[in-house]
Amino acid sequence: MILAFDFGGTKNTCAAFQRNATGAYELVARERRASPPQADGAYDYAVMGAMARQLLRGETPDAIGISFGGPARASQGLVVLSHHVPGWENSLLRDQVAREFRTRVAMDNDANAAALGEARFGAGRGCASLLYITVSTGVGGGWILNGEIYRGAKELAGEIGHVVIDPHGPPCVCGRRGCVEQLACGRAIARMARQALEREPTRGGILRGLIENDYAQLSGLRVHQAAEQGDALAQDIMAQAARNLGFAIGNVICLMNPARVILGGGVTNAGAKYFENVRAAARANVMPELRDAVDIQPAQLGDDAPLWGALALVG
Amino acid sequence: MILAFDFGGTKNTCAAFQRNATGAYELVARERRASPPQADGAYDYAVMGAMARQLLRGETPDAIGISFGGPARASQGLVVLSHHVPGWENSLLRDQVAREFRTRVAMDNDANAAALGEARFGAGRGCASLLYITVSTGVGGGWILNGEIYRGAKELAGEIGHVVIDPHGPPCVCGRRGCVEQLACGRAIARMARQALEREPTRGGILRGLIENDYAQLSGLRVHQAAEQGDALAQDIMAQAARNLGFAIGNVICLMNPARVILGGGVTNAGAKYFENVRAAARANVMPELRDAVDIQPAQLGDDAPLWGALALVG
Repeated sequence: MILAFDFGGTKNTCAAFQRNATGAYELVARERRASPPQADGAYDYAVMGAMARQLLRGETPDAIGISFGGPARASQGLVVLSHHVPGWENSLLRDQVAREFRTRVAMDNDANAAALGEARFGAGRGCASLLYITVSTGVGGGWILNGEIYRGAKELAGEIGHVVIDPHGPPCVCGRRGCVEQLACGRAIARMARQALEREPTRGGILRGLIENDYAQLSGLRVHQAAEQGDALAQDIMAQAARNLGFAIGNVICLMNPARVILGGGVTNAGAKYFENVRAAARANVMPELRDAVDIQPAQLGDDAPLWGALALVG
Repeated sequence: MILAFDFGGTKNTCAAFQRNATGAYELVARERRASPPQADGAYDYAVMGAMARQLLRGETPDAIGISFGGPARASQGLVVLSHHVPGWENSLLRDQVAREFRTRVAMDNDANAAALGEARFGAGRGCASLLYITVSTGVGGGWILNGEIYRGAKELAGEIGHVVIDPHGPPCVCGRRGCVEQLACGRAIARMARQALEREPTRGGILRGLIENDYAQLSGLRVHQAAEQGDALAQDIMAQAARNLGFAIGNVICLMNPARVILGGGVTNAGAKYFENVRAAARANVMPELRDAVDIQPAQLGDDAPLWGALALVG
């Protein structure tokens, strides 16, 4: 039995994997707990341990893979910090788990884990190289090159969310302007929608109804829902967010020519039209000889990608 | 003895390498011929063969490495075409050389070969990952990841020259606008200088003198020379070209976090001030936690980088 830990920031999940008769891994059991507002690192760690022991029923696991939702150094098994939960700073999480469960443990951040999960078990099977991008409240990414996670010299590779595509664009939390994240993530969609609603008082009726005329209720999901219901303003915003992401992906393809780019995260649940717009913008932003090399696919493992990736780290 | 062939478009070079007493490779002899205007692929191939036989003096080489200046597929040993010399289209150059010289042969394009040469023998020694960028009449690039050339799914990776950094910028030969090449290469520097000279009739006196008031004499080299002699307009243009390149490198570092970026090609001979401007722009365009990861160094092997890379392909 192999365990996978997914420290997700707002929720923590523990899954048990076993090989079936054909030798393929199956997710045979899982436990999940929301991380309460007062949680700190020690609390989340204790809850994960309790879930693990529940799944193990006294057995020793063959290995444990860990996906951590935040900056982490895989080579050292070190959590740098969590953006959601205090008290994780500079934790040697990998070795702590290895001591407690007396087994082999590997760890990586959630974007790298999800990339590996999709590569081995999801939308990236058969691809030697891929970039996995998660478009959610923020934008993150992870590289698989030659079949393995590529982490970069300081284990900070994959930050497509902070590639600048418009130096005059909106300010970013990183201190610069016009990062992909600020032009494509859920919060960006909400911000762009609010600006459009303020600018165009006669448009966006469906969206205004959905949020009860309360801008505080604006979210990427609401804008997507309004677009689905035919709101032209919301459709414009969703298309713009998709084009912004696609433009950035085109640049990535010129630079790295990956076999595939895989999009996961809540915003990418926006459906076929969203993907059409991303692909069209990417194709328009590569050299002619690379147009056929634009292969952008939806993730297949959803929220489970980090768990499958954690499995792949040790399986 | 290992031979290295460098088909350079305007000149062709053949070098012989041997290990010295300490086991290190030394370039022991070389032949070089300009490629005359009427040359075609068969002519350049015959000249290279003649140079090789001259260096070999009847010996059989242990291996031959080939750097080709143009689109090529290393996996097949195939030259797609040359932008400079007709008649190279779809040549199986690697196997032709292997048959003729009865030895082991490997081949890659000149950017990848130069990247590998710098990684093994030049400015990239000790770096597991690096991007080599050549800034000359155009802008090209090659990746070394985990110590090996990374070519991408269709062997088209490394095209930093066609990453778009200003969608409203000048048109590019690739059909898009604002590619790095159009904002940083020698021709771009000449174009930007011409625009500045036309726009500001009272500035650029030194540069105007150097080109004898003849815009046809403008080149990256002339602008650099004028800048060196204190021409403020020329200094502005050189600084802008450096900042454009540095901005793009910042984005690359966010995405890939290479251990080092190495700059070669004629424009990068512009000296310390040029490198300062590139580095400052790159540092300003990465996330704060990546600022220490900005390591941009001049190439060390100059025009010989493809030869040393060709050696490394087989050595």
